[in-house]
Amino acid sequence: MKLATRLSFLGTETAFAVSSEAKKYALKGNTVYPFHLGDLNIHSPENIIQATERAMRDGKTGYCPNVGIPELCEILAEDINKSHGTTYKMKNVGIQPGGKPTIGKFILSLMNPGDEVLHPNPGYPIYESMIEFHGGVAVPYSYVEGKENFELNFDELEKSITAKTKILIFNNLQNPTAAESSQAELVKIAEIVRKHNLYVLCDEAYFDIRYKGKSQSLASLPGMQEKCVILYTFKKKFAMTGWRLGASIGPNNIVDHIAKLNVNDESCSNHFIQYGAIEGLTGDQSGAKKILDILKKRRDKAVEILNSIKGVHCFKPNATFYLFPNVTDVMQNKGFTDYNIFREKTLEATGVSFCTRLHFGRELPNENKRYIRFAYSGINIDQIEEGLSRLKLFLEN
Amino acid sequence: MKLATRLSFLGTETAFAVSSEAKKYALKGNTVYPFHLGDLNIHSPENIIQATERAMRDGKTGYCPNVGIPELCEILAEDINKSHGTTYKMKNVGIQPGGKPTIGKFILSLMNPGDEVLHPNPGYPIYESMIEFHGGVAVPYSYVEGKENFELNFDELEKSITAKTKILIFNNLQNPTAAESSQAELVKIAEIVRKHNLYVLCDEAYFDIRYKGKSQSLASLPGMQEKCVILYTFKKKFAMTGWRLGASIGPNNIVDHIAKLNVNDESCSNHFIQYGAIEGLTGDQSGAKKILDILKKRRDKAVEILNSIKGVHCFKPNATFYLFPNVTDVMQNKGFTDYNIFREKTLEATGVSFCTRLHFGRELPNENKRYIRFAYSGINIDQIEEGLSRLKLFLEN
Repeated sequence: MKLATRLSFLGTETAFAVSSEAKKYALKGNTVYPFHLGDLNIHSPENIIQATERAMRDGKTGYCPNVGIPELCEILAEDINKSHGTTYKMKNVGIQPGGKPTIGKFILSLMNPGDEVLHPNPGYPIYESMIEFHGGVAVPYSYVEGKENFELNFDELEKSITAKTKILIFNNLQNPTAAESSQAELVKIAEIVRKHNLYVLCDEAYFDIRYKGKSQSLASLPGMQEKCVILYTFKKKFAMTGWRLGASIGPNNIVDHIAKLNVNDESCSNHFIQYGAIEGLTGDQSGAKKILDILKKRRDKAVEILNSIKGVHCFKPNATFYLFPNVTDVMQNKGFTDYNIFREKTLEATGVSFCTRLHFGRELPNENKRYIRFAYSGINIDQIEEGLSRLKLFLEN
Repeated sequence: MKLATRLSFLGTETAFAVSSEAKKYALKGNTVYPFHLGDLNIHSPENIIQATERAMRDGKTGYCPNVGIPELCEILAEDINKSHGTTYKMKNVGIQPGGKPTIGKFILSLMNPGDEVLHPNPGYPIYESMIEFHGGVAVPYSYVEGKENFELNFDELEKSITAKTKILIFNNLQNPTAAESSQAELVKIAEIVRKHNLYVLCDEAYFDIRYKGKSQSLASLPGMQEKCVILYTFKKKFAMTGWRLGASIGPNNIVDHIAKLNVNDESCSNHFIQYGAIEGLTGDQSGAKKILDILKKRRDKAVEILNSIKGVHCFKPNATFYLFPNVTDVMQNKGFTDYNIFREKTLEATGVSFCTRLHFGRELPNENKRYIRFAYSGINIDQIEEGLSRLKLFLEN
């Protein structure tokens, strides 16, 4: 069978392979402490479920507009304007069946084959996959440890820009590092975007998963609304990962093309769940608050134990549900040089399942520190305590 | 703003423009008789809604596997095997957020830039759009009037095949003509597929919308299971158009690549509605039967009135919810030479809104007959009677 050549450039999320290994280990009768996947083990809020049921029974079961129902587009634009200080209107919003569709559709709309696209590494692996699958050149930029959190490596970013650079993929409140840019960093990024006339995919999937302070968006800066497309998703804030609902929010001439891709790719997103999303944005917010309260307690517990482990250093980020501890010393102490062996042996010895830096891109030249990623969205606090205590015991002995 | 060049090759469904015109006409206080869109104005069956609600409340709101939940994949494979006589297993099924995603993912998996792809014209316009958007060469084949229904133009199809032909897109039980192939025709197509080593996208969106007889699939013929990917959708049979749920069913090595595209494009389909789909396939079938009964009555009424109009000839197809009347004579009698003017003037005079042949591809060289398309899925029988009686009055005077 002769398949299309482009398939050889298609990547995937290797984190799913970690799930399979964890499942195999559990089938042997072992307890698994699942820190590997960014799914939520928390129920979607009751008021959102009820609004969805009402819509289904009201016959919202036929097609809806390709960009989503007008009420949701309007309410989402207003909601974003409130948090971002932007001036989006209904026509700037295209509802999508999840957060991911915005990545591929943005790239198909703005990148020609051979164009260079800056993307974070470590970063969400789908960026690199979609860039290369559609014939672009993926150019990585990285993060370095700052005082309180990871910071964007600006020198590297600026040096990577050439005449062929067309797009910056920017995931503020980042997966996997949980890095977030200060206002000063955002101003610097905006300058680069202006100077090199770039378009920006602002992946804001974790914008609302925040325990302290206020999330900032590049799109809020002067002139940036016209250069950015925001990847929005309902999934995290409302524990709606499996609902598959998100949006592309940006300049109308880009959103119009993304809408045309909607017509071709899937017609429209599920009709009735969009009424659940309206309830999520406009109704009682206690469900979303409860989710954040649960996540905050998990974060505190996980960071506390991780930092108590000799040879492990972990920041305490104010946003996302990820931790990216530095395990350079502990890997050396335990005699591990290979990420995968470290991960597998740890699972075998403790049941603690996590991703490593390798699940978020290839190691960069001169990279000399080692990191692993913990997601605390899918594991209860007592299991966090039990699992990480086992991990501590294993790593310190 | 410099958008990607490939966007200039992206098509759309121009039928949506007809919807806008109909809406404008309605806003002036006029009655519209909507025959233009293939949506259903019938509620999804109660047992499917209930099963979906149960799953939502049971917490099936997190991610599910990229190819869909295993139970649904297994049940769907068995269901297809029963109607098709095939031997599909779970691993041959990839659940999709609708019928359309299979078109783009099949093309991306099997077509290289420059490959020639045979597609029906008149036909669903997304085929041509996706072929050209991803760099292929769209080669049309057409249908001709037979005795009781439209038939595939075999001479033309065979003459169009070159060394570069890689794929056949075959929409048996066709939109817009409602053509369906006899067993003899299917055997001939299978011969062509074998002879030229083609891969086939079998769009079977209307396989179960059937009033008499039994639907046949190319995939049922010897050796064809390995050459065909079936586009399956839950939407029509169960009046679930707005749910967005379908599947790609085919050889495992193709479905595996389609699954990898799922990972990149949208992670997975909505989790809890898949339990509704299981109920649809395994539960009480009276809902689906009721939908077919309603549609059959509408078909009979519409065909009866259309054939009573002087200068109109309309087949009475056993499947789909489309009619494709020949209006060559009536257009001539009324002095219309342009499809769009004919359509607009008819809407203005009668409120009857329909698509023309032009919404399903460019007219082919030497095409000398004129056709329009009526969908009777979204209009009640009393409105069919009222609207088409007005149409008759307008066209005969």
